[in-house]
Amino acid sequence: MSLSNLTVDGDRLIHRLEELAKIGALEGGGCCRLALSEEDRQGRDRVVGWMRDLGLAVSIDGIGNVIGIRAGSEDGPPVMVGSHIDTVRTGGIYDGCLGVIAGLEVIQTLNDAGITTRRPLAVAFFTNEEGARFAPDMMGSAVHQGFLDLDEALAVTGIDGTVVGEELQKISYCGDAETGHFRAHCFIEMHVEQGPVLDAEGTAIGVVEGVQGISWTELVIGGVSNHAGTTPMRMRCDAAVVSARIAVEARSIAEDMGGDQVATAGVVEVAPGLVNVVPNRALMTVDLRNTDERLLQQAEARLFSYADKVASDEGATIERRTLARFAPVDFAPEMTDLIEKIAKGQDLSTRRMPSGAGHDAQMFAPNCPTAMIFVPSRDGISHNIEEFTKPGDIQAGANVLLHVVLEKAES
Amino acid sequence: MSLSNLTVDGDRLIHRLEELAKIGALEGGGCCRLALSEEDRQGRDRVVGWMRDLGLAVSIDGIGNVIGIRAGSEDGPPVMVGSHIDTVRTGGIYDGCLGVIAGLEVIQTLNDAGITTRRPLAVAFFTNEEGARFAPDMMGSAVHQGFLDLDEALAVTGIDGTVVGEELQKISYCGDAETGHFRAHCFIEMHVEQGPVLDAEGTAIGVVEGVQGISWTELVIGGVSNHAGTTPMRMRCDAAVVSARIAVEARSIAEDMGGDQVATAGVVEVAPGLVNVVPNRALMTVDLRNTDERLLQQAEARLFSYADKVASDEGATIERRTLARFAPVDFAPEMTDLIEKIAKGQDLSTRRMPSGAGHDAQMFAPNCPTAMIFVPSRDGISHNIEEFTKPGDIQAGANVLLHVVLEKAES
Repeated sequence: MSLSNLTVDGDRLIHRLEELAKIGALEGGGCCRLALSEEDRQGRDRVVGWMRDLGLAVSIDGIGNVIGIRAGSEDGPPVMVGSHIDTVRTGGIYDGCLGVIAGLEVIQTLNDAGITTRRPLAVAFFTNEEGARFAPDMMGSAVHQGFLDLDEALAVTGIDGTVVGEELQKISYCGDAETGHFRAHCFIEMHVEQGPVLDAEGTAIGVVEGVQGISWTELVIGGVSNHAGTTPMRMRCDAAVVSARIAVEARSIAEDMGGDQVATAGVVEVAPGLVNVVPNRALMTVDLRNTDERLLQQAEARLFSYADKVASDEGATIERRTLARFAPVDFAPEMTDLIEKIAKGQDLSTRRMPSGAGHDAQMFAPNCPTAMIFVPSRDGISHNIEEFTKPGDIQAGANVLLHVVLEKAES
Repeated sequence: MSLSNLTVDGDRLIHRLEELAKIGALEGGGCCRLALSEEDRQGRDRVVGWMRDLGLAVSIDGIGNVIGIRAGSEDGPPVMVGSHIDTVRTGGIYDGCLGVIAGLEVIQTLNDAGITTRRPLAVAFFTNEEGARFAPDMMGSAVHQGFLDLDEALAVTGIDGTVVGEELQKISYCGDAETGHFRAHCFIEMHVEQGPVLDAEGTAIGVVEGVQGISWTELVIGGVSNHAGTTPMRMRCDAAVVSARIAVEARSIAEDMGGDQVATAGVVEVAPGLVNVVPNRALMTVDLRNTDERLLQQAEARLFSYADKVASDEGATIERRTLARFAPVDFAPEMTDLIEKIAKGQDLSTRRMPSGAGHDAQMFAPNCPTAMIFVPSRDGISHNIEEFTKPGDIQAGANVLLHVVLEKAES
């Protein structure tokens, strides 16, 4: 059979997804397999079992990342695919798992066709991508690619008071493979979009050009509490008005800048919170994201200077604290071009887009050619038991993944 | 001695204020004498004792209002002064009490000078003005002037599960004087401003022309919760942005209208309240006040139509609920003119102003010529143990009260 006609078995892929989803299954759908929990152990055991069934050589490293290697006709760094199988507390069954299971499906397709690639192939799942129990998120891939110290990660205490290293021992996934040095030939992560764009447009494949840079800022505004009836407007110092102006400006910044810029005021807390008292305190957050670091800095500068100005105009104090700041990650044009070419060759509609969320792939991007393939999320819903991607979309994405892997493994 | 040279004894007045403040005194200053509490009973007993010492004929009505009458040379409706002696949980020592104690000081001044007025005089304190334990506020004066049914008031259950009628029995202040029919010749309430205007300007006397109408609206905005990174701006339905725009508009309405118009967004609650999630729900309140009913309605109309429009522009739902609505109360020009004339005759600076808060006087305004005399509140602080009015300001206000009473009692 010709390589170019090779296709994955979508039913088989979805069957594995559904099998994995039974572990930690939630009433009404979705999954709860928090990182390093008993459910995570059972999920890991299931995937490792499939890896072994497929003939992969399984290794486990010091932070519990699992890699299954399929030998090539030549030695050298593998073409690597992967993602994660941990979930948030009320997660869907696709987030993360799809990238891992699609990788296994690629392997099985090649096994069934009797194809040995030139370069080795690898399918991986990384520990604690979600960060729902232990911070930071993308912990396993960060340690794997040398951006987070192993001992530091093992010492992390979770929201339930448990410690990563101890929980890893408890589920018997503290392996001896070294961390921080592994270099793949390239890395490809297939993932559900977790946003509404592809679904709304009816586009099959998102060609992910990078991960948006993230800037999280907390603003605490201090005003003066006063009687809402007896205090003339000219004598007010209203923390909530300052906060409201900043929230409106954040929206304007995103609209004025256009492109990939987004802005969200997700937290707004006002005190004392009484109908007839001028608020003396407002706490708010602004989440700014852009794929372009220069533009992200522009957005920050505009927001911060506006916030200082409106607080000062009101006579209010303002304190600013950075809660998180990550620079944008660019994926390799050679990889995105290849994904786009292959998708188009399969008559699939494509859109180049950024990822608004963080993914394991971004830890590989500085070290090897990296990219991601997005498939549509119904209504953009994710981190929710309602998360859904149509079987046809999954199959289409996995076929693109298959041929990207083949192309990279042979070239 | 000439009537026009008659003055109150400021020290004596303040001594009585301080004596009353010892009952329910709080650590650090201020008072807690919640309506119909044991502390309220003790405070009432103290004031009733003073009334009797001054020779007033004390009557108590079915809701516990207490009136002390000083006979005039003629019979007929009395010139009445009064306020309340209940407090909020962390109240000051001036709010309410000043109007009652100043009334007693007027009586004592006349007693000491051996003056019998033509009309009778009355000093009153009304039950539960604050509404801090039982709603509505201004309960006693509302029953007294026929705007609230006695039985309805007696049946009110408080925030602690107690019932007005039972608590009134418990403190032995359920009297047999009739309610709803008493008509004063006129009513004058001296009170601390509870706002910052007089203090900031250094003005001695506030000539209160009326009580602002109040419009309290709760707005609940429904958006769609989405990922702050993956959801493009054009696909958002952000409840917090709608809420912020409305808060900013409320401020603009007050600034554009000027005059007495005030606007406050005191409650702002946003859900789910996470940094990286577009809010799907916002609950907020807007407190609008104006002395002019027509202007207050204009402010409401502008706010409501703007709120509907911005919600619709965002694709959000909006529900509106009236939490409270009171029309403005106008005081009698003959009374305000007299207060101003007398204050100016005493070389006191004056300012005509509205009351931003509700007061017992507003229950009298529809039934007899009524007005209020405001004295400065330091920094506008009230309902707070820091509440303070300078002795000199108290004495000045009480002297104005004395001569307004004399003028009305003789004319």
